[in-house]
Amino acid sequence: MRSTSLEVALAVDEGDAADSVTPVTTLRIARSLPSEWASLPMDCEARSQYRVLFCDSLLKGHGTVLEEAIEDRKALLVTTPTVDRMYGAAMRAVLKKTNTVSTLVLNAREETKSMELVATVCKEALSHGLNRRGLLIGFGGGVCLDVVTMAASLIRRGVGHVRVPTTLIGQIDAGIGLKGAVNFSGKKSFIGTFHPPEQVLIDPAFLESLPRKFLVAGIAEAVKMGIVRDAALFEMLESWSPELVTSGFGEPAVQGREVLRRSIWAMLDELRKNPYEDQTYERLVDFGHTFSPALEGAMGFEIQHGEAVAIDMALSATIARSLGLIAPEACARILRVLRAASLPIFARPLDVPLCREALIEASRHRGGSMNLVVPAGIGRTVFLKRCDDLPDSVLEHALASLAACVPGAS
Amino acid sequence: MRSTSLEVALAVDEGDAADSVTPVTTLRIARSLPSEWASLPMDCEARSQYRVLFCDSLLKGHGTVLEEAIEDRKALLVTTPTVDRMYGAAMRAVLKKTNTVSTLVLNAREETKSMELVATVCKEALSHGLNRRGLLIGFGGGVCLDVVTMAASLIRRGVGHVRVPTTLIGQIDAGIGLKGAVNFSGKKSFIGTFHPPEQVLIDPAFLESLPRKFLVAGIAEAVKMGIVRDAALFEMLESWSPELVTSGFGEPAVQGREVLRRSIWAMLDELRKNPYEDQTYERLVDFGHTFSPALEGAMGFEIQHGEAVAIDMALSATIARSLGLIAPEACARILRVLRAASLPIFARPLDVPLCREALIEASRHRGGSMNLVVPAGIGRTVFLKRCDDLPDSVLEHALASLAACVPGAS
Repeated sequence: MRSTSLEVALAVDEGDAADSVTPVTTLRIARSLPSEWASLPMDCEARSQYRVLFCDSLLKGHGTVLEEAIEDRKALLVTTPTVDRMYGAAMRAVLKKTNTVSTLVLNAREETKSMELVATVCKEALSHGLNRRGLLIGFGGGVCLDVVTMAASLIRRGVGHVRVPTTLIGQIDAGIGLKGAVNFSGKKSFIGTFHPPEQVLIDPAFLESLPRKFLVAGIAEAVKMGIVRDAALFEMLESWSPELVTSGFGEPAVQGREVLRRSIWAMLDELRKNPYEDQTYERLVDFGHTFSPALEGAMGFEIQHGEAVAIDMALSATIARSLGLIAPEACARILRVLRAASLPIFARPLDVPLCREALIEASRHRGGSMNLVVPAGIGRTVFLKRCDDLPDSVLEHALASLAACVPGAS
Repeated sequence: MRSTSLEVALAVDEGDAADSVTPVTTLRIARSLPSEWASLPMDCEARSQYRVLFCDSLLKGHGTVLEEAIEDRKALLVTTPTVDRMYGAAMRAVLKKTNTVSTLVLNAREETKSMELVATVCKEALSHGLNRRGLLIGFGGGVCLDVVTMAASLIRRGVGHVRVPTTLIGQIDAGIGLKGAVNFSGKKSFIGTFHPPEQVLIDPAFLESLPRKFLVAGIAEAVKMGIVRDAALFEMLESWSPELVTSGFGEPAVQGREVLRRSIWAMLDELRKNPYEDQTYERLVDFGHTFSPALEGAMGFEIQHGEAVAIDMALSATIARSLGLIAPEACARILRVLRAASLPIFARPLDVPLCREALIEASRHRGGSMNLVVPAGIGRTVFLKRCDDLPDSVLEHALASLAACVPGAS
């Protein structure tokens, strides 16, 4: 199958009417037809590149980082009530020189994370005439960024977006990947998309005003990356996480930055292997994310995502210990680092039926294989692939062992 | 910036509990950290391939084509009331041996093409526990396939879908590309996605029962491909389109197949250059699609998409003639081929203000450039890039000239 294409730029000069026209003219000679008619192939390739940028004092400088990100495009700022109250005025001052046409303050919480919220952003974009070169700026925590990512992927089949995460979980996890999702019909993140941002701007200054409980929740994702692939990060968290959650990563500053950077680097490095999750369903970053969705569902948003992840990691580590896959001391270090960061390691709704339900759902999401990630050491993991790999007796034993650590939980 | 990664498969053999486990163990040595911390790059590449398959008697054989497409996956069939009435039973008989769990009959029309309809498909997928390996089968016209494509792109961040277009426009245009979209807040196709199908199955037999008005509307897209890049296709349509719209492409059969195949090949070949429309906003396939959305909007779905496209092509050709870009005889051939296929070349709502509005909207969608595609001959096109390239006087003259061709239109 050979194809030929000839493109010729023609000067158009045919009378007065054409004088004002500067068209691009393409002369096309029909390509030769394929010899095989029964099946016509179509190749699609989408390439994109984005960057995660560390910038100190994003709202204090002259706003050049944001101005450069927006260029001359029409932009729409999307934020949440809390972030707007704390930083809205400063952000708008920085955006003054740009073509940012509106600020949409969205009541974006886990409970409201829905297609309706996405539709609100789309409607605002429509009413301000955003074109395909238009830009959304997501300014807030993980939920706000999820909604903005979804909206950006859908408006006119995809417009660009820049993310400015203001929470720890946003800066090291939810805000730096390709994914966006909303809850649907009671099902967490059932509806979603892969839509790479253009840039993610990380300013640690936002963490200093973050309520302690969000810092605690966020640090769970840093612990996760330490356990699955960066023993040095894990050791930093063993030493510094109590101070970091107390100071909002302000003290000790050097270690705070290092934890952020190592966490982000580890996450990007994992995502890079399989950004659209179409190569394999074995993902290290799924550690802590198998039992946790069911737990979050059972607790009706009474639990922080990071807390549920911590409990999932504690359970997964304990399962690994019961199966003889991890040394008891390594498992103990994992439980200790979680508790040191004020993270929970057990919650009452967690029982065998809920865990089984979670494992079935995980299999649905992971192409039919359970792929439970359990640690085999610090920086070493095992994927338990089939439900049979995890007998009820092991699950019961692990749950009982964790319940026993928590006074009054069992 | 060098990175190292060492993956070692370890045999796990640590006592009885581990015996039943066949885990994949990955030993990871943390990658070296990037030397440049200020900006971390992330590369994303999505590759996919699909095929458009010609299959005769899809519903009469043993269904092997569909069985092979579905494999062992859980599938959900989505269709429309008319298609279900005519072919639903036969389709379900063919799908009997597959794991197709449900048929969703969707009232999918241009008027109802909305996120609500997409949500209906998502809800059905959720209630039947479709996992990420799950599959949607879209069986119907362009609108049905649009909704299925949207739903497939969103469910669990993307599941596969197979399309079986039953209309001419579905088989040669709307059903064979990557795009899906729905109307939003009164705006046509404001919300959409790029989500390649796995396969598109083309069976010309469906066209034989298609109402004449849909055949007429569909042939407009074949005429479009002929004008912009395949003079041989254009000549076939000059000779055969009256018979083809009368016989539902059944007579003459050889020419009918050839028109389908040439149209599909031309479309795929154009899409292939820029499947995600992120390289350029100059697209030959936009011919006939600049004024038509505004006309469809103004006529409140009283006009077929293909009819609006025909009127747009007639206007674009007449503009080209007024600007001296196309020879009068070539323009006359274009108008003649449209009328021979019973397509309209003018409609009353088309006036200068509506055209201007359409051009502004097209610019929004084409990165700020108008990019009006006008023919410079059969198989030769010009892009008019700026609004200034098309003076009001030319537009008025072209509209008046077309109105004069239609008795009682002006």
